[in-house]
Amino acid sequence: MNTRERLIATTADLISRKGFRGMGINEVLSLVEVPKGSLYHHFPKGKESLVTEAVKYGGKAQMERYGAALKGKGAEEGLVAIIDVMIEDLRNTDFCEACPIAIVALEASEATEDIRKACDEMFKSWQVGLAYYLEKRGISKGLEKAEQFYALLEGGFILSKAHRDVKYLEQQKPLIALILKA
Amino acid sequence: MNTRERLIATTADLISRKGFRGMGINEVLSLVEVPKGSLYHHFPKGKESLVTEAVKYGGKAQMERYGAALKGKGAEEGLVAIIDVMIEDLRNTDFCEACPIAIVALEASEATEDIRKACDEMFKSWQVGLAYYLEKRGISKGLEKAEQFYALLEGGFILSKAHRDVKYLEQQKPLIALILKA
Repeated sequence: MNTRERLIATTADLISRKGFRGMGINEVLSLVEVPKGSLYHHFPKGKESLVTEAVKYGGKAQMERYGAALKGKGAEEGLVAIIDVMIEDLRNTDFCEACPIAIVALEASEATEDIRKACDEMFKSWQVGLAYYLEKRGISKGLEKAEQFYALLEGGFILSKAHRDVKYLEQQKPLIALILKA
Repeated sequence: MNTRERLIATTADLISRKGFRGMGINEVLSLVEVPKGSLYHHFPKGKESLVTEAVKYGGKAQMERYGAALKGKGAEEGLVAIIDVMIEDLRNTDFCEACPIAIVALEASEATEDIRKACDEMFKSWQVGLAYYLEKRGISKGLEKAEQFYALLEGGFILSKAHRDVKYLEQQKPLIALILKA
């Protein structure tokens, strides 16, 4: 990775643990081992544009992991596999990391419009990708069902994180069949 | 309200818009119009204990609003009414405020254990209160269903906020009947 890519990847990683308010530019620079001038060279608008790119980068990376989990599976089995990706991420990071976008979306009230739009676009591209997957497997109203699924995934994530217990994601699994059948 | 209560209420309000990382103590002090010494007089541990109390205060206030929405209703109708409270809050605050705890729960990875525990306890008291409400209306496995409902409420909230569109909460409503029947 070149410097620009390393700045983005490191920021994405810090954001998913602390949010963009909790993440400091100096922390990014020190992890990437470049001087402050390097940030403004690659991101003339500073933190705002770095965060925007990091949301897109983190969102795409997560979408690829979900895509890999879906591969070769049926509709219900695929959605269960996405929940399992999130459960594994929470377990592997001691309940620190899982969704790279949710926290930014909640912080975004007072963020710039660019950052909010990046969250909006990344969530939408997950939903549209999943809608396509479902429709190909004969599920009607694929987009609405994909959106309902992501809502229960994100909600299960918030509760699992707050309670440090993956049960809140596990017990969303039986709802998948109900959504798909509706 | 006395000074202590005003400090807590103001902090709760700022947290639900910005999270506890985005909220500054100086902003609280200036809104409440008291000197810095006042904070340490009421909260010897400073920001950490103020945030912990604010999470509890915000969580209780929200629970009372949900309780009022449930009053005199049947099981399904009551849960729809809770979703409507959140939709109204998002609309009334230009998509800034709704759940006072979700953002803190996501920020809490690097927060103190006291703050995380306050989120954990507030969410649990919502879930237990709702479980009691459901069981009284003849719904079996009330706690599990209350937890599933809160997950889809919080997830619908994240998506509605990210997309600035209450549709993501609206379309969780048909899932309520499916959960209750299961």
